[in-house]
Amino acid sequence: MIRVIVWGFGEMGKGIVENILSKKSVLELVGVIDVKPDLVEKDAGLLLGKEKIGIRVSSNPEKLLDEANPDIVILSTNSFVENVLPQIEMIIKKHINLITIAEEMAYPFHTHPEESSLIDSLAKRYGATVLGTGINPGFVLDTLIITLTAVCKKVKKIKARRVNDLSPFGPTVMKTQGVGTTVEEFYKGLEKGEIVGHIGFEQSINMIADALGWKLEKIEEIREPIVSKVQRETKYVEVKPGMVAGCKHVGKGYLNGEIVIELEHPQQIRPELENVETGDYICIEGEPDINLSIKPEIPGGTGTIAMAVNMIPMVVEHKPGFYSMKDFPIPRCLNI
Amino acid sequence: MIRVIVWGFGEMGKGIVENILSKKSVLELVGVIDVKPDLVEKDAGLLLGKEKIGIRVSSNPEKLLDEANPDIVILSTNSFVENVLPQIEMIIKKHINLITIAEEMAYPFHTHPEESSLIDSLAKRYGATVLGTGINPGFVLDTLIITLTAVCKKVKKIKARRVNDLSPFGPTVMKTQGVGTTVEEFYKGLEKGEIVGHIGFEQSINMIADALGWKLEKIEEIREPIVSKVQRETKYVEVKPGMVAGCKHVGKGYLNGEIVIELEHPQQIRPELENVETGDYICIEGEPDINLSIKPEIPGGTGTIAMAVNMIPMVVEHKPGFYSMKDFPIPRCLNI
Repeated sequence: MIRVIVWGFGEMGKGIVENILSKKSVLELVGVIDVKPDLVEKDAGLLLGKEKIGIRVSSNPEKLLDEANPDIVILSTNSFVENVLPQIEMIIKKHINLITIAEEMAYPFHTHPEESSLIDSLAKRYGATVLGTGINPGFVLDTLIITLTAVCKKVKKIKARRVNDLSPFGPTVMKTQGVGTTVEEFYKGLEKGEIVGHIGFEQSINMIADALGWKLEKIEEIREPIVSKVQRETKYVEVKPGMVAGCKHVGKGYLNGEIVIELEHPQQIRPELENVETGDYICIEGEPDINLSIKPEIPGGTGTIAMAVNMIPMVVEHKPGFYSMKDFPIPRCLNI
Repeated sequence: MIRVIVWGFGEMGKGIVENILSKKSVLELVGVIDVKPDLVEKDAGLLLGKEKIGIRVSSNPEKLLDEANPDIVILSTNSFVENVLPQIEMIIKKHINLITIAEEMAYPFHTHPEESSLIDSLAKRYGATVLGTGINPGFVLDTLIITLTAVCKKVKKIKARRVNDLSPFGPTVMKTQGVGTTVEEFYKGLEKGEIVGHIGFEQSINMIADALGWKLEKIEEIREPIVSKVQRETKYVEVKPGMVAGCKHVGKGYLNGEIVIELEHPQQIRPELENVETGDYICIEGEPDINLSIKPEIPGGTGTIAMAVNMIPMVVEHKPGFYSMKDFPIPRCLNI
C-alpha cells in the first residue's frame, strides 16, 4: 500500500483524488490539502458529490504532512515553478516523494536551471524522488515523440500538432485562451499576459532536444488568434463570425538556423463547425519517416489525472533526485 | 566510446553494422562474427559493398570476444531462445553486455522461465546487462501499447494490428509466410512447421499483460491463409487468384474467459492490390478509449536495426540482469 496526499483540490486535484480512491488495493488516500475557504474542513468525498470518506480538506500542509505519514504527495496547485517551489521544498524536506502536474515542472532544467538543481540536490539529500508529469507537457508532445524516435536510425526534424476542443471548459480557460474576444482584444490580452495560450512548449521542446542530443540555439513561441468564420457557442461563451474562437500557439526549436522541432497546439471551442478534426499528430522526418495520429486527441483532463496517478508506483520505487518522464521507465496504466 | 561486436552478419546484422559505422563519435565497431564460409575472413566493409574498414568477419567468437574487449555484443543470429542460449551464456560469462533481436528473447519470462532465470542470474553474477529488443516484438505491439496505456485511468481491452507489405523480402520470408502456396499447401506447411507466420505474439502479449497486472489464463494463436482475389507478383514469387498471398496471424490473450489482448499481424505481398492500407493500428478500450494509427507501418527491417543500436547506451549504463523493454527508460534515437 502506498500512502498518498493530494495537495490542490481544483478540477485536476479532484479527478486525481477520485482516481486514487478507485485503486484502493494499492493506493491509500491519507490526506487532501487546499486553502480555499469553501473547501477547508469539508469531507473530500462529499465535495466530490460522493459518499463521505472520512478525510477532511486541510489548510495546514505542515501539520498534515507530518502527521499523515505519506509516501508521496501529488501536487496540483499551480502551473509555474516560482509558485510551487516553496511547496516542493516543504515536501522534500519532510523526506516525502512528489509528483507534480505543474506544467513548468515537466522539464524546467533549461528554463529554471537554478531552481531545478536546488530541487535535485534537496531531493537527493532528503532521499525523495520528484517527477513532473501530465498529458501535455509530460506525454503527447514530448514523451510519446521521444519514444517514437527509437525506431529511427536518424531524426532530422519533428513536427507535431495537438488539436483539441475547449468546449467543455469553464470561464477561466476561455479567458486564458482568448475565446470570445475581438482580434484587437486578443492581442491586448497577449500583451498584458492575460491570454497565455499553452503552458509547456519550452518544456516539451527542451525535453525532446536533450533526448536527441540537440543543443538548440533558441526556442520561439508564436500565439495567434483563431478567428472564427462561423457562429460558435458553448455554455459559457459566444463567438460571432470575425471574433476569436481560440488561440493557435506554436513553439519552434532552432538548430543551426533551421527549425528542427515544431509543435503546434491550436485550442478553440467547437472546432468541428469549421471542419477541424481534433487529434494528436506526430510527424518525424528521419530514417524512416514516421506519421502517427491519435483521433480524437487524448483527452487533456483525464490524461493528466491518469498520468499523475499511474506514475505513483514508479516514483516511489525510483532512486532519489529530480527527474523528468524522459528518465523514467516506459509509463503504463496502474490498471487496478 | 562504446566498443561493439555484432554477432550474426545476415540482413539484420549487416544493417546493424552499417548503422553502428554511421555513429562513429560514440560507437566503435570492434568485431563481426559469423560462421558462413562465404563471409569468414572477409572485410565487413567490403561485404557491405562499401570501403574496407579493417574488420574481418571472424568465425571464432571465443577468441574475438576475449581479444577485442567489447563493452557490448549485438546478437542477430537466430529467432529462438533455444538456439541463442549457448551464445548468450558465452557472452555473459565474459562479463560483456548484450542486446539480442532474437524474437523469443524480447520477453521469454513466461515461455522460457528456466532459461530466463538462468540468463538473469548469470547476468547478475557476471555483471552484464541483457536486453531483448526489435521492432516487433520489442516495440510496435508491446512497448508502444504499454506506453500508451499510461494516459488511461483504466484499460479493459487492447486490440492492435500491424499490417505490412512483404513485397521487398526474399524467398526465405515467402516460404515461412506461405506466400505463393495453394490453400492446401498452406495448411500442410503450417502442420509441418514450415510456415510459421509471425514470431513474437506470446512475447508481446505476456509483456503487455505483466505491465497491466493481468494474469492471463491462456494465449491462443491462429494462422490463416490470406487468399488473393487478384494476381499478385514480386521479383521472387507469383500469386494467382485463389492462391495464398500471405499469412494472417492473430494472437489472443484471455482473462476470466474474455479476450483482453488481441494482436493481429497479416503479412502479405502487394496488399495495395486489394486496397489494404498498411499501417500500425492500436485501439485501447478503457478510460478513455485511445485510437492510434501509424501510416504506413513502421518499416520492420529499419526499425529493428534502429532499435538494436539505439538501445546500446542505455544497456551499457543499466544495472546488471536480464530485462525487457518494459523495464527500460523510454527509448529514443541515438541521433548522431
